[in-house]
Amino acid sequence: MRNKIKTIAFDADDTLWVNELYFKEAEGRFCALLEDYLPPQSAYQELFNTEMKNLPLYGYGIKGVILCMIETITRVTNGTAQLQLINQTLEMGHELLQKPIELLPGVKETLEQLYGKYQLVMATKGDLLDQERKLKLSGLQDYFHHIEIMSNKQVANYQRLLKQLDCSPQNFLMLGNSVKSDVLPVLALEAFAGHIPYHTTWMHEQHHDKVEHPNLITLGNIADIINHLD
Amino acid sequence: MRNKIKTIAFDADDTLWVNELYFKEAEGRFCALLEDYLPPQSAYQELFNTEMKNLPLYGYGIKGVILCMIETITRVTNGTAQLQLINQTLEMGHELLQKPIELLPGVKETLEQLYGKYQLVMATKGDLLDQERKLKLSGLQDYFHHIEIMSNKQVANYQRLLKQLDCSPQNFLMLGNSVKSDVLPVLALEAFAGHIPYHTTWMHEQHHDKVEHPNLITLGNIADIINHLD
Repeated sequence: MRNKIKTIAFDADDTLWVNELYFKEAEGRFCALLEDYLPPQSAYQELFNTEMKNLPLYGYGIKGVILCMIETITRVTNGTAQLQLINQTLEMGHELLQKPIELLPGVKETLEQLYGKYQLVMATKGDLLDQERKLKLSGLQDYFHHIEIMSNKQVANYQRLLKQLDCSPQNFLMLGNSVKSDVLPVLALEAFAGHIPYHTTWMHEQHHDKVEHPNLITLGNIADIINHLD
Repeated sequence: MRNKIKTIAFDADDTLWVNELYFKEAEGRFCALLEDYLPPQSAYQELFNTEMKNLPLYGYGIKGVILCMIETITRVTNGTAQLQLINQTLEMGHELLQKPIELLPGVKETLEQLYGKYQLVMATKGDLLDQERKLKLSGLQDYFHHIEIMSNKQVANYQRLLKQLDCSPQNFLMLGNSVKSDVLPVLALEAFAGHIPYHTTWMHEQHHDKVEHPNLITLGNIADIINHLD
């Protein structure tokens, strides 16, 4: 691998900076809002069902999650909830959209070492404006040759990205925390993937089967990639 | 102009296809939902105020509009509205996200004539997934060398686009219906702009001063651009 890679793409949420923890916290507050109606685990399951139903329309990102929370409140309370619950949910959305950016350990140092040697790309899902905001706050913007905010991370999305970068799959390495989004579609294209597991993963992104593939490396943390390249 | 242009970028909503009419219709339904509380014009103004307040967080697109409608309902009814109003608003959002695509007159023929002679780009604001959906349904995808879905259309956004296209401002022509988004920032970069007025414009995009500039042409319809280029 080390001789071939020219372009390294980084997932953003939970690869470069903390993200899922903020969602988990918001989900906890959402379940607490509904405590008079449902046990927390059921409230979470109802929310997840709403999210999966609306994913083809809403796509990924905070605004869609908040709309799904509101829809779930109206459904599980049979329209009897106080409007106050809706307000508190909107408020949570505003807070999520203003969370500080906390870089994960080793991120800045790793980008610093790779910068100039490889074409560095950020490739992430989510709300367009929100991801731009986070990138700006991260201070990492200048390391990246290209920023791609994608509506999804399936094989066709990566194909378009590679075409746009004019990069052949065998010269492309994707690093990220999601086997489903950052690893499997990349391996399907015969490009390289580096999986950096994060301690918490959204149910929708979970992948339980072990993946083994000659083009896949698993990293303890982002800085480990240096040893695989040098 | 005609000798210089190499890249032509097209706004999408209300330049390639009908859009604002769907929003106007949804706003009318929103005002009707609040008829027990406010006269329609006040309800519309309250919604617009919410949209402007939240624009830095939500950006453009349907999901943000629906969140703003919900917030406006909770505010103007002092939390007394029936949850049913929230449901109907969510339903409107689902409908907006599934509207058919109606191409404006002359769009396909114009793209057909320009294709191969110029690098054609689509450059639009809005929700990422929704704009991708509309482009796919439009059948116009194959005319475009590049699709840019932008969080905003200010000078800096166009600068990034030109850099990405490796295009100099004097070789760039932007066509669109919004003076504020498609014309002024483009002229500020000394690129060329073609304004194609549409009969209805969102209040936020309205620009009342007459713009005159040697790099600006005003077109009666999209097909007129051919006469300015050939």
